[in-house]
Amino acid sequence: MPAQPILRIDLASAVPAYAQIAAQLRALLVAGELPPGRRLPPVRQLALDLGVHHNTVALAYRTLADEGWLDLRRGRGAVVIERREQRPSAREKTDFSRRLEALVAKAAADGLSPQAVAKEFEALASKLWKGKKS
Amino acid sequence: MPAQPILRIDLASAVPAYAQIAAQLRALLVAGELPPGRRLPPVRQLALDLGVHHNTVALAYRTLADEGWLDLRRGRGAVVIERREQRPSAREKTDFSRRLEALVAKAAADGLSPQAVAKEFEALASKLWKGKKS
Repeated sequence: MPAQPILRIDLASAVPAYAQIAAQLRALLVAGELPPGRRLPPVRQLALDLGVHHNTVALAYRTLADEGWLDLRRGRGAVVIERREQRPSAREKTDFSRRLEALVAKAAADGLSPQAVAKEFEALASKLWKGKKS
Repeated sequence: MPAQPILRIDLASAVPAYAQIAAQLRALLVAGELPPGRRLPPVRQLALDLGVHHNTVALAYRTLADEGWLDLRRGRGAVVIERREQRPSAREKTDFSRRLEALVAKAAADGLSPQAVAKEFEALASKLWKGKKS
Protein backbone atom coordinates (compact mmCIF):
# COMPACT_ATOMS: atom_id res chain seq x y z
CA MET A 1 0.00 0.00 0.00
CA PRO A 2 1.15 3.57 -0.58
CA ALA A 3 2.94 4.84 2.50
CA GLN A 4 0.94 3.40 5.37
CA PRO A 5 -2.64 2.28 4.96
CA ILE A 6 -4.83 4.80 6.69
CA LEU A 7 -7.07 2.33 8.44
CA ARG A 8 -8.56 2.98 11.83
CA ILE A 9 -10.42 0.73 14.19
CA ASP A 10 -13.04 2.35 16.38
CA LEU A 11 -13.27 0.12 19.41
CA ALA A 12 -16.35 1.97 20.67
CA SER A 13 -18.26 1.17 17.49
CA ALA A 14 -20.99 -1.48 17.34
CA VAL A 15 -19.52 -2.56 13.98
CA PRO A 16 -17.14 -5.52 14.44
CA ALA A 17 -13.47 -4.74 13.84
CA TYR A 18 -13.16 -7.12 10.86
CA ALA A 19 -16.11 -5.39 9.19
CA GLN A 20 -14.57 -1.98 9.82
CA ILE A 21 -11.33 -3.11 8.18
CA ALA A 22 -13.18 -4.67 5.24
CA ALA A 23 -15.31 -1.54 4.79
CA GLN A 24 -12.31 0.79 4.74
CA LEU A 25 -10.38 -1.39 2.32
CA ARG A 26 -13.50 -1.73 0.15
CA ALA A 27 -13.78 2.06 -0.07
CA LEU A 28 -10.13 2.25 -1.20
CA LEU A 29 -10.71 -0.54 -3.71
CA VAL A 30 -13.86 1.04 -5.11
CA ALA A 31 -12.13 4.39 -5.46
CA GLY A 32 -9.27 2.74 -7.38
CA GLU A 33 -6.74 3.63 -4.72
CA LEU A 34 -5.75 -0.03 -4.46
CA PRO A 35 -5.44 -1.05 -8.12
CA PRO A 36 -5.18 -4.63 -9.42
CA GLY A 37 -1.73 -6.06 -8.75
CA ARG A 38 -1.29 -4.17 -5.50
CA ARG A 39 -0.21 -6.37 -2.62
CA LEU A 40 -1.85 -5.72 0.74
CA PRO A 41 0.23 -5.85 3.92
CA PRO A 42 0.67 -9.32 5.42
CA VAL A 43 -2.11 -10.25 7.85
CA ARG A 44 0.16 -10.28 10.87
CA GLN A 45 1.74 -6.94 10.08
CA LEU A 46 -1.57 -5.16 9.60
CA ALA A 47 -2.92 -6.83 12.75
CA LEU A 48 0.05 -5.48 14.70
CA ASP A 49 -0.35 -2.00 13.19
CA LEU A 50 -4.03 -1.91 14.10
CA GLY A 51 -3.71 -3.63 17.46
CA VAL A 52 -6.14 -6.42 16.62
CA HIS A 53 -5.92 -10.22 16.52
CA HIS A 54 -4.56 -11.57 13.25
CA ASN A 55 -7.75 -13.58 12.76
CA THR A 56 -9.61 -10.28 12.58
CA VAL A 57 -7.51 -9.10 9.65
CA ALA A 58 -7.65 -12.55 8.04
CA LEU A 59 -11.45 -12.45 8.18
CA ALA A 60 -11.52 -8.99 6.62
CA TYR A 61 -9.29 -10.20 3.76
CA ARG A 62 -11.41 -13.31 3.31
CA THR A 63 -14.57 -11.20 3.15
CA LEU A 64 -13.06 -9.12 0.35
CA ALA A 65 -11.74 -12.21 -1.42
CA ASP A 66 -15.27 -13.65 -1.36
CA GLU A 67 -16.47 -10.45 -2.99
CA GLY A 68 -13.93 -10.86 -5.77
CA TRP A 69 -11.50 -8.11 -4.83
CA LEU A 70 -8.53 -10.15 -3.58
CA ASP A 71 -6.55 -13.23 -4.41
CA LEU A 72 -5.33 -14.92 -1.24
CA ARG A 73 -2.88 -17.52 -2.52
CA ARG A 74 -0.79 -18.97 0.26
CA GLY A 75 2.72 -17.57 0.35
CA ARG A 76 1.90 -14.68 -1.95
CA GLY A 77 -0.19 -12.76 0.53
CA ALA A 78 -3.27 -10.79 -0.46
CA VAL A 79 -3.18 -9.32 -3.94
CA VAL A 80 -5.79 -7.04 -5.50
CA ILE A 81 -7.28 -8.56 -8.64
CA GLU A 82 -9.31 -7.29 -11.57
CA ARG A 83 -12.97 -7.50 -10.57
CA ARG A 84 -15.91 -7.79 -12.88
CA GLU A 85 -18.55 -5.06 -12.67
CA GLN A 86 -21.41 -6.30 -10.55
CA ARG A 87 -25.14 -6.13 -10.97
CA PRO A 88 -26.84 -5.50 -7.67
CA SER A 89 -29.24 -8.18 -6.43
CA ALA A 90 -32.71 -7.23 -5.20
CA ARG A 91 -31.49 -8.10 -1.73
CA GLU A 92 -28.52 -5.75 -2.01
CA LYS A 93 -30.75 -2.93 -3.20
CA THR A 94 -33.22 -3.39 -0.34
CA ASP A 95 -30.39 -3.64 2.15
CA PHE A 96 -28.88 -0.44 0.88
CA SER A 97 -32.19 1.45 1.05
CA ARG A 98 -32.84 0.37 4.62
CA ARG A 99 -29.38 1.16 5.83
CA LEU A 100 -29.34 4.52 4.11
CA GLU A 101 -32.68 5.45 5.65
CA ALA A 102 -31.52 4.39 9.12
CA LEU A 103 -28.26 6.29 8.76
CA VAL A 104 -29.73 9.51 7.40
CA ALA A 105 -32.56 9.46 9.97
CA LYS A 106 -29.95 9.12 12.71
CA ALA A 107 -28.01 12.05 11.25
CA ALA A 108 -31.17 14.18 11.15
CA ALA A 109 -32.03 13.13 14.72
CA ASP A 110 -28.52 14.08 15.85
CA GLY A 111 -29.05 17.54 14.40
CA LEU A 112 -26.86 17.37 11.31
CA SER A 113 -28.08 19.79 8.69
CA PRO A 114 -29.35 18.57 5.33
CA GLN A 115 -26.71 20.77 3.70
CA ALA A 116 -23.86 19.18 5.61
CA VAL A 117 -25.14 15.71 4.85
CA ALA A 118 -25.74 16.44 1.16
CA LYS A 119 -22.27 17.91 0.78
CA GLU A 120 -20.65 14.88 2.34
CA PHE A 121 -22.69 12.58 0.16
CA GLU A 122 -21.68 14.40 -3.03
CA ALA A 123 -17.99 14.36 -2.14
CA LEU A 124 -18.19 10.65 -1.51
CA ALA A 125 -20.11 9.89 -4.69
CA SER A 126 -17.60 11.69 -6.87
CA LYS A 127 -14.72 9.92 -5.14
CA LEU A 128 -16.26 6.45 -5.33
CA TRP A 129 -17.67 6.59 -8.82
CA LYS A 130 -14.75 8.50 -10.27
CA GLY A 131 -15.17 8.71 -14.01
CA LYS A 132 -18.43 6.79 -13.95
CA LYS A 133 -20.75 9.73 -13.45
CA SER A 134 -22.01 9.02 -16.99
CA MET B 1 -49.92 4.44 15.33
CA PRO B 2 -51.83 5.15 12.14
CA ALA B 3 -53.25 1.90 10.81
CA GLN B 4 -50.53 -0.61 11.51
CA PRO B 5 -46.93 0.41 12.00
CA ILE B 6 -45.01 -0.66 8.95
CA LEU B 7 -42.04 -2.12 10.74
CA ARG B 8 -40.11 -5.07 9.45
CA ILE B 9 -37.43 -7.19 11.01
CA ASP B 10 -34.84 -8.65 8.72
CA LEU B 11 -33.60 -11.75 10.50
CA ALA B 12 -30.79 -12.20 7.97
CA SER B 13 -29.36 -8.78 8.79
CA ALA B 14 -26.24 -8.29 10.90
CA VAL B 15 -28.06 -5.41 12.62
CA PRO B 16 -29.67 -6.58 15.89
CA ALA B 17 -33.48 -6.67 15.86
CA TYR B 18 -33.84 -4.03 18.60
CA ALA B 19 -31.64 -1.65 16.57
CA GLN B 20 -33.70 -2.30 13.44
CA ILE B 21 -36.90 -1.45 15.33
CA ALA B 22 -35.33 1.66 16.87
CA ALA B 23 -34.00 2.79 13.48
CA GLN B 24 -37.36 2.43 11.75
CA LEU B 25 -39.23 4.21 14.52
CA ARG B 26 -36.56 6.94 14.56
CA ALA B 27 -37.08 7.52 10.84
CA LEU B 28 -40.84 7.90 11.43
CA LEU B 29 -40.18 10.24 14.37
CA VAL B 30 -37.72 12.37 12.42
CA ALA B 31 -40.14 12.63 9.51
CA GLY B 32 -42.90 13.81 11.85
CA GLU B 33 -45.02 10.76 11.11
CA LEU B 34 -45.22 9.99 14.83
CA PRO B 35 -45.96 13.42 16.32
CA PRO B 36 -45.73 14.35 20.01
CA GLY B 37 -48.64 12.90 21.96
CA ARG B 38 -48.85 9.79 19.80
CA ARG B 39 -48.95 6.58 21.80
CA LEU B 40 -46.87 3.68 20.47
CA PRO B 41 -48.26 0.14 20.59
CA PRO B 42 -47.71 -1.69 23.88
CA VAL B 43 -44.41 -3.56 24.00
CA ARG B 44 -46.04 -6.99 24.08
CA GLN B 45 -48.37 -6.26 21.20
CA LEU B 46 -45.62 -4.98 18.93
CA ALA B 47 -43.41 -7.91 19.94
CA LEU B 48 -46.17 -10.32 18.92
CA ASP B 49 -46.76 -8.47 15.63
CA LEU B 50 -43.07 -8.61 14.78
CA GLY B 51 -42.41 -12.08 16.12
CA VAL B 52 -39.67 -11.01 18.50
CA HIS B 53 -39.14 -11.25 22.25
CA HIS B 54 -40.79 -8.47 24.21
CA ASN B 55 -37.40 -7.49 25.65
CA THR B 56 -36.31 -6.67 22.12
CA VAL B 57 -39.10 -4.13 21.69
CA ALA B 58 -38.58 -2.82 25.21
CA LEU B 59 -34.91 -2.19 24.43
CA ALA B 60 -35.82 -0.36 21.22
CA TYR B 61 -38.26 1.87 23.15
CA ARG B 62 -35.67 2.48 25.86
CA THR B 63 -33.08 3.45 23.24
CA LEU B 64 -35.46 6.06 21.82
CA ALA B 65 -36.44 7.25 25.29
CA ASP B 66 -32.74 7.79 26.05
CA GLU B 67 -32.52 9.88 22.90
CA GLY B 68 -35.40 12.06 24.11
CA TRP B 69 -38.11 10.84 21.74
CA LEU B 70 -40.33 8.88 24.11
CA ASP B 71 -41.78 9.05 27.57
CA LEU B 72 -42.05 5.58 29.06
CA ARG B 73 -44.11 6.10 32.18
CA ARG B 74 -45.31 2.83 33.63
CA GLY B 75 -48.97 2.19 32.90
CA ARG B 76 -49.18 4.82 30.19
CA GLY B 77 -47.08 2.97 27.66
CA ALA B 78 -44.69 4.73 25.30
CA VAL B 79 -45.72 8.22 24.30
CA VAL B 80 -43.95 10.45 21.79
CA ILE B 81 -42.77 13.69 23.39
CA GLU B 82 -41.61 17.06 22.11
CA ARG B 83 -37.88 16.83 21.56
CA ARG B 84 -35.40 19.66 21.57
CA GLU B 85 -33.37 20.21 18.42
CA GLN B 86 -29.99 18.61 18.86
CA ARG B 87 -26.51 19.80 18.06
CA PRO B 88 -24.39 16.98 16.74
CA SER B 89 -21.31 16.04 18.76
CA ALA B 90 -17.94 15.63 17.06
CA ARG B 91 -18.29 11.92 17.72
CA GLU B 92 -21.69 11.77 16.00
CA LYS B 93 -20.33 13.62 12.98
CA THR B 94 -17.34 11.29 12.64
CA ASP B 95 -19.55 8.27 13.11
CA PHE B 96 -21.88 9.45 10.41
CA SER B 97 -19.04 10.10 7.95
CA ARG B 98 -17.55 6.68 8.46
CA ARG B 99 -20.82 4.87 8.16
CA LEU B 100 -21.84 6.81 5.09
CA GLU B 101 -18.54 6.06 3.39
CA ALA B 102 -18.82 2.34 4.22
CA LEU B 103 -22.40 2.20 3.00
CA VAL B 104 -21.88 4.08 -0.25
CA ALA B 105 -18.69 2.14 -1.03
CA LYS B 106 -20.64 -1.09 -0.54
CA ALA B 107 -23.36 0.19 -2.88
CA ALA B 108 -20.77 1.11 -5.50
CA ALA B 109 -19.08 -2.29 -5.08
CA ASP B 110 -22.44 -4.03 -5.50
CA GLY B 111 -22.90 -2.22 -8.80
CA LEU B 112 -25.53 0.35 -7.85
CA SER B 113 -25.30 3.35 -10.14
CA PRO B 114 -24.43 6.77 -8.76
CA GLN B 115 -27.71 8.05 -10.24
CA ALA B 116 -29.81 5.47 -8.40
CA VAL B 117 -28.01 6.16 -5.15
CA ALA B 118 -28.25 9.95 -5.51
CA LYS B 119 -31.95 9.73 -6.29
CA GLU B 120 -32.61 7.65 -3.21
CA PHE B 121 -30.58 9.99 -1.09
CA GLU B 122 -32.50 13.05 -2.28
CA ALA B 123 -35.89 11.45 -1.70
CA LEU B 124 -34.83 10.55 1.82
CA ALA B 125 -33.42 13.96 2.61
CA SER B 126 -36.59 15.75 1.56
CA LYS B 127 -38.68 13.33 3.59
CA LEU B 128 -36.55 13.53 6.73
CA TRP B 129 -35.84 17.25 6.76
CA LYS B 130 -39.28 18.24 5.59
CA GLY B 131 -39.60 22.00 5.78
CA LYS B 132 -36.06 22.40 7.05
CA LYS B 133 -34.33 22.59 3.69
CA SER B 134 -32.09 25.57 4.50
